[in-house]
Amino acid sequence: MNYRSVIKVLGFLLLVTSACLVLPAIISLAYGESDWPYFLASSGVGLLLGGGSLLFLRGAPDLRVREGFAVVAFGWLCVGLLGALPFWLSGQIPSFTDAAFESISGFTTTGASILTDIESRSHGTLFWRAMTHWLGGMGIVLLALAILPLLGVGGMQLFRAEVPGPVAERLTPRIRETAKILWGVYFLLTVAEILALIIAGMGPFDAICHSFATMATGGFSNNNSSVGGYNSAPIEWVLIVFMFLAGANFSLHYLALKGKWKLYFRDEEFKFYGTIVLVTTSLIVAALLPIHFYPHWGETVRQSLFQVVSIITTTGFGTADYLLWPPISHALLLILMGVGGCAGSTGGGIKVMRVLILLKHAKLELKKMLHPRGVFTLWFNNRAISSSLQTNVLGFFLLFMMVYIGGVLILTLGGRDLLTSVGATAATLGNIGPGLGEVGPASNYSALFNWEKWLLLFFMIVGRLELFTVLVLFLPGAWRKS
Amino acid sequence: MNYRSVIKVLGFLLLVTSACLVLPAIISLAYGESDWPYFLASSGVGLLLGGGSLLFLRGAPDLRVREGFAVVAFGWLCVGLLGALPFWLSGQIPSFTDAAFESISGFTTTGASILTDIESRSHGTLFWRAMTHWLGGMGIVLLALAILPLLGVGGMQLFRAEVPGPVAERLTPRIRETAKILWGVYFLLTVAEILALIIAGMGPFDAICHSFATMATGGFSNNNSSVGGYNSAPIEWVLIVFMFLAGANFSLHYLALKGKWKLYFRDEEFKFYGTIVLVTTSLIVAALLPIHFYPHWGETVRQSLFQVVSIITTTGFGTADYLLWPPISHALLLILMGVGGCAGSTGGGIKVMRVLILLKHAKLELKKMLHPRGVFTLWFNNRAISSSLQTNVLGFFLLFMMVYIGGVLILTLGGRDLLTSVGATAATLGNIGPGLGEVGPASNYSALFNWEKWLLLFFMIVGRLELFTVLVLFLPGAWRKS
Repeated sequence: MNYRSVIKVLGFLLLVTSACLVLPAIISLAYGESDWPYFLASSGVGLLLGGGSLLFLRGAPDLRVREGFAVVAFGWLCVGLLGALPFWLSGQIPSFTDAAFESISGFTTTGASILTDIESRSHGTLFWRAMTHWLGGMGIVLLALAILPLLGVGGMQLFRAEVPGPVAERLTPRIRETAKILWGVYFLLTVAEILALIIAGMGPFDAICHSFATMATGGFSNNNSSVGGYNSAPIEWVLIVFMFLAGANFSLHYLALKGKWKLYFRDEEFKFYGTIVLVTTSLIVAALLPIHFYPHWGETVRQSLFQVVSIITTTGFGTADYLLWPPISHALLLILMGVGGCAGSTGGGIKVMRVLILLKHAKLELKKMLHPRGVFTLWFNNRAISSSLQTNVLGFFLLFMMVYIGGVLILTLGGRDLLTSVGATAATLGNIGPGLGEVGPASNYSALFNWEKWLLLFFMIVGRLELFTVLVLFLPGAWRKS
Repeated sequence: MNYRSVIKVLGFLLLVTSACLVLPAIISLAYGESDWPYFLASSGVGLLLGGGSLLFLRGAPDLRVREGFAVVAFGWLCVGLLGALPFWLSGQIPSFTDAAFESISGFTTTGASILTDIESRSHGTLFWRAMTHWLGGMGIVLLALAILPLLGVGGMQLFRAEVPGPVAERLTPRIRETAKILWGVYFLLTVAEILALIIAGMGPFDAICHSFATMATGGFSNNNSSVGGYNSAPIEWVLIVFMFLAGANFSLHYLALKGKWKLYFRDEEFKFYGTIVLVTTSLIVAALLPIHFYPHWGETVRQSLFQVVSIITTTGFGTADYLLWPPISHALLLILMGVGGCAGSTGGGIKVMRVLILLKHAKLELKKMLHPRGVFTLWFNNRAISSSLQTNVLGFFLLFMMVYIGGVLILTLGGRDLLTSVGATAATLGNIGPGLGEVGPASNYSALFNWEKWLLLFFMIVGRLELFTVLVLFLPGAWRKS
């Protein structure tokens, strides 16, 4: 491990964040609020730390694979801690643990909150909170599509090397170009959502913040009761559409914008993603209708669809306390928490593509039982998936389950009840936000102990960075001198 | 699929069960009870059906792999239904669904019960109930060590072909001999336990029934409050020891009886099994002691150890309502439900050996991230595990999770709450017995709907037969004419 190279890149990330911290200061000034100096001060801290490390380590060598892991893992942590600074300095979030929780929850696009009274926060705070989402979401698109494949990480290499048949080929091969294109799509969709939300009746400030939170599949809202606070069907429908888009592969959107929208219906992952949403929504509607949970069937459909899309995309916006719904909803939503968004989206979780490969793999193993000497190929988007990639996806699932089980054990060991522990681990590891039990949609994470908050922060980063990236740093070999 | 061959073998299994049904009739007569004719009548039905199919299908060809799957899957079902007959005919269990539940729960050594007042049942009924366990346990030892490897099923082929280094080599290679040896061990241990229980103060009848239930890791007890009903520390200690033995590989016991007891400490699976028991017991003790749940630390240790061993071996005897213990116990016991006993034991679940291989595989996948071009070997008991076997174990885990998730979905869809659904599915799929929530250790399965009972019966058989064996029958190819 070459620490100097790692620190140099981390310095660059701090500089970028430092520049972004000027924006909430401007918002604060514009609204005549008094907390703009804290944003500028935090920006200054980032400038000093980031600029300093860049200056002093100018001569450090370039990154290799091993350092890449450290950069992505510690990058999210450093940026998150810098982002926590204004919350803490301004006294908007008095505890540093809480400020770090809110900021890292933002950057990892988790959207788990410790704020109990959101509506009384300053505009600058709310804007920065939403912006951490948006920056994190950008970072993830870049990470998943450009950096991780270089590190050879996870099933995401699927995207570049093996799967996308009609998709990836047509994107330009160079990373810088790919990143630009996808950021362009991300930016365009954000603008489109802001406009749509304003038309649907939301104020411009809230529209910007909620669009940031949607496109990053984050989930921070400016209301104590999340999106439910607007009590507006048009706003909810707009959010449903854009959450669904944010949970799909951004390359597909790019190709659709270029007129190739038929590719949506040729992409196996997208079709499966759509099917899951339709089937689970139907099941929940079927459970809610007979007990007349909502007065109208239209509202039943909207509430069910909203919650399903919000959870599978790992956004975590809330309009209803789904813990009051019938048991099948709990089971389905808990499963959706694990599934997560599509590969190449801003969503978290295991990812639809991996789930599909796991299902196909299980079927293949059964077939092998019947025909022990048969040779079977796993097809995805009309391409054969190599057995080493299958093993990788299985390994990912295994690690996901292990970290999940480990999290539940640690939390229950600390005395937290089983449902809350399961919900909190799933919601942070999957970057969703609201969980079950004491951290369910009707409450938040403020009541947890500080050590629990730091543990969950760790899960947010582990989940966000596709597990391997972070967990590999726990192997002694990762730190060996080179 | 050659149906005639399958039916011929099923007929043979029915004949064996029919012969065994004479024993409870003798017990019933000996205790001067009036239900002996029902056992004889059921025996007659078995004789007719079994003898008839053997006579008429004498000329059917031998089994091939494909028919093997059907025989083991339907074998457990047919024998279970025949075993339900005396319960139902005698009116001891008036509903046929309930009678089938009790019988199949017995033969699969699950030990989930629908009996609400066990103590008022006739001796014949209680004896037959315990005997279903013992016969099932015998069947499983034979299945896991002799039949399944021939079918090429699951990680159990590990036992014969790949793993056991010091173990399997010394067992005689021929199946018939292996089966005899292991049944001998099974028989000896059962006798030893009966004697130990009598010395510990249990009546001879109860000692026989509980020994049957222990050695098969079944869990039926003759008391409404299970083993807790005796309120006796010596009895509980005897059961702890024999449950632990029943959850270990029977080949190790055979070698120990031949003086090679050092092999226990050289077998990786056995060491890991012992470690899990020690660590989880310590954690539960550490959670129970500070809150003074039990008056004495000795009782705390005994109760924790009893529950841990009872659950990991998938026996399911109860001495305490663990749902009243602190949350960490719930999480740990739920995990142990999945782990299950060792390969080659009568225990259910995923099996310790598979869990160990999964853990090693996950570590290997992480190492591959660091050294993308490295070649890694998974070692188990000093032997290299082939990648196809690793994939098979991963596939097993995947299928287990899928059936588990599917079960929870179906039960919650029917309106059952999440905790009960999770507990009931885990407890039947893992062949444990008591679950969580409404089917927790302080209650039983009698309150479930009939369709839920049949679903859980299906899970018992699927879990018992290592998933692949049953699930493969759902592939259309399994039924193709040959």
